[in-house]
Amino acid sequence: MAFINENYTKLPGSYLFSDIAKKVNEFKAAHPEANVIRLGIGDVTKPLPSAIINAMHAAVDEMADASTFRGYGPEQGYDFLVNTIVENDYKARGLDISADEIFVSDGSKSDTGNIGDILGLDNIVAVTDPVYPVYVDTNVMSGRAGELQANGKWNKLVYIPCTSENDFVPSLPTEKVDIVYLCYPNNPTGTTLTKDQLKVWVDYALQNKVLILFDGAYKEFITESDVPHSIYEIEGAREVAIEFRSFSKTAGFTGTRCAYTVVPKTVMGYTKTGEKVSYNKLWNRRHTTKFNGVPYIIQRAAEACFSAEGKKQIKDIIDYYMNNAKIIREGLTSEGLQVYGGVNSPYIWVKTPKGMTSWGFFDYLLNDLHVVGTPGVGFGPSGEGYLRLTAFGTLENTKEAVSRLKKISI
Amino acid sequence: MAFINENYTKLPGSYLFSDIAKKVNEFKAAHPEANVIRLGIGDVTKPLPSAIINAMHAAVDEMADASTFRGYGPEQGYDFLVNTIVENDYKARGLDISADEIFVSDGSKSDTGNIGDILGLDNIVAVTDPVYPVYVDTNVMSGRAGELQANGKWNKLVYIPCTSENDFVPSLPTEKVDIVYLCYPNNPTGTTLTKDQLKVWVDYALQNKVLILFDGAYKEFITESDVPHSIYEIEGAREVAIEFRSFSKTAGFTGTRCAYTVVPKTVMGYTKTGEKVSYNKLWNRRHTTKFNGVPYIIQRAAEACFSAEGKKQIKDIIDYYMNNAKIIREGLTSEGLQVYGGVNSPYIWVKTPKGMTSWGFFDYLLNDLHVVGTPGVGFGPSGEGYLRLTAFGTLENTKEAVSRLKKISI
Repeated sequence: MAFINENYTKLPGSYLFSDIAKKVNEFKAAHPEANVIRLGIGDVTKPLPSAIINAMHAAVDEMADASTFRGYGPEQGYDFLVNTIVENDYKARGLDISADEIFVSDGSKSDTGNIGDILGLDNIVAVTDPVYPVYVDTNVMSGRAGELQANGKWNKLVYIPCTSENDFVPSLPTEKVDIVYLCYPNNPTGTTLTKDQLKVWVDYALQNKVLILFDGAYKEFITESDVPHSIYEIEGAREVAIEFRSFSKTAGFTGTRCAYTVVPKTVMGYTKTGEKVSYNKLWNRRHTTKFNGVPYIIQRAAEACFSAEGKKQIKDIIDYYMNNAKIIREGLTSEGLQVYGGVNSPYIWVKTPKGMTSWGFFDYLLNDLHVVGTPGVGFGPSGEGYLRLTAFGTLENTKEAVSRLKKISI
Repeated sequence: MAFINENYTKLPGSYLFSDIAKKVNEFKAAHPEANVIRLGIGDVTKPLPSAIINAMHAAVDEMADASTFRGYGPEQGYDFLVNTIVENDYKARGLDISADEIFVSDGSKSDTGNIGDILGLDNIVAVTDPVYPVYVDTNVMSGRAGELQANGKWNKLVYIPCTSENDFVPSLPTEKVDIVYLCYPNNPTGTTLTKDQLKVWVDYALQNKVLILFDGAYKEFITESDVPHSIYEIEGAREVAIEFRSFSKTAGFTGTRCAYTVVPKTVMGYTKTGEKVSYNKLWNRRHTTKFNGVPYIIQRAAEACFSAEGKKQIKDIIDYYMNNAKIIREGLTSEGLQVYGGVNSPYIWVKTPKGMTSWGFFDYLLNDLHVVGTPGVGFGPSGEGYLRLTAFGTLENTKEAVSRLKKISI
């Protein structure tokens, strides 16, 4: 008799974004005339720029000719892409990352989910709260999260609140922790850590042999100089941190799918008897056994992001989104709302007015202003009383949404 | 202190195909003038046909325009592809599979590896022997395989020998088994099961609540009428089998990456207390939490495989490879070698002459004839004394390799 992994049965039946979609669809069915503007899900809207389009057309043509056709490539990614990543994202910033520490993949959702494969099941995992749900859900699936409690927390996870009360700076845990997920610039709050603030975490990890899983999916949105683009800018991070990077938000690859994970050979995990093992070796084995590489055409698209033309075109798109962020941030601030993020991030984290709940504010915005946000509580208990807006809409929709939000009358 | 998943440390350091690559590279370094022909790794060589190329160019253009740009798609695959798969691969054969039972992915290597996520860790797993190494290695990683023994077997796995002695037809296990992997047409032996032979397994699974993981990656190579293209041609299979399908070998997608997994809603797993749970629901949760869909462009490429033009072009390519298979099979048979497969499969499984070991025969072919095969023992203990050749080379290389193999003088 084949048994299931019973941890899956502990997961709540529905998912945040499907709950939102259901509410929005119901509203639209009841009000077909309403012009609903979605500033909820973090999906991009700008098309891929020409540098990337041209690279893909050229790669497609290569696949049509026996002399240039590509079959299986290296699971870790082609040298042309891996070396380009090393040069542009690390060497150019003075960071010591080598080609065999880069693993190209189909997305950071996959990578941050799959990384658990190489980690022991009885590690104690800490997450900042609110948090990207994939970190939590994948630990539920593996059994590291334990049981869901009435307060919305899983009993084996350690939650590190990040709210306006602590200026969204996570405190070091007081209990024993083995693994911590950090995402900066942060999803969902849009806030960042300075180098000094991140150094506190790297030092803590060094002292306690903690593994930091650092999600840097939003690094291209950083505008302030004291915000680290990579955790490896912090001394000692090469000993304790695995970094996840994605082309999704920066280059508009949400439907094109490419990302990479950096596993320095110097990051060590431990056996129960205290023997050191390099995570790089384990991840390489996982990646080559359970994955067969990113499509050649997509790897050429990712490479094109680093050409002079590609960089300029991507920067223009990011500037466009960040202009949206500014419009949202300033528009809501001028209405007296408390607003966070949106400076180094496409996410704006809004404190609900007059003590409304996240879902209450969501419902009000949908029903009265026809604007869709994401209820903060969907990202964890400490997200209650907040709502996430994103800057990925069109300029026109963003302006229209902000003009409606200015009519808030609660 | 962060602990590793210690199961990874049980895996042997190197992988079959990297061992082969090392030997071939050493030989080529020592004999730079030799024209080495590789009939080892199962990678395709023919370029993508025009129907697929045209579909990709069109999709790339869509990504360049805001009105047709695609961001996040459904993790399970776009309706246009899922419905096309259902129509062509199932409904057209009279098989009852619905759209929400299809999960499009980046490859069967990923799917056959990741499927273990939703299965309990103390299931007893059976594999045919020899076998595609991913089934074994991913069970080692999860802990279901136990320890590697001196005889090359993992102590918790059940091995079902498939050799010329039993005409490559796996016997039902005599010990208790919960999950069984079946791959037909088979990799590596190239042999098949008839409908009656596969029915024995489906009946066994029904009686014992066993889950069958059926890998159908090579179904397009079937030429004989009594060989099932899908396990769902067998009555009752909808209750017990998950089927894996891939565009890799059939449509030349080894570097383009698309596959799908069929999880009928009627296949049930069990909790420890005997409660039934649908694997479809679990896999949907896994797929939507740890995966973000196949690139839009690649899904359009996969869709094009089912157009009238695409079908014809793919059939021409398969006919080309199967002509190679015939040349290898007939050439070696006429030399008195015992040869299996190659009729419904691109793989030819050769009995080594005069009791040579797999690696001994490999070394002889490389050093004396400059032909690369894959040692059968690399696929499991029952592969000892065999060598795998593939039909994926060019016609010229295949003919040249066979003319060399005719000089075998052992």
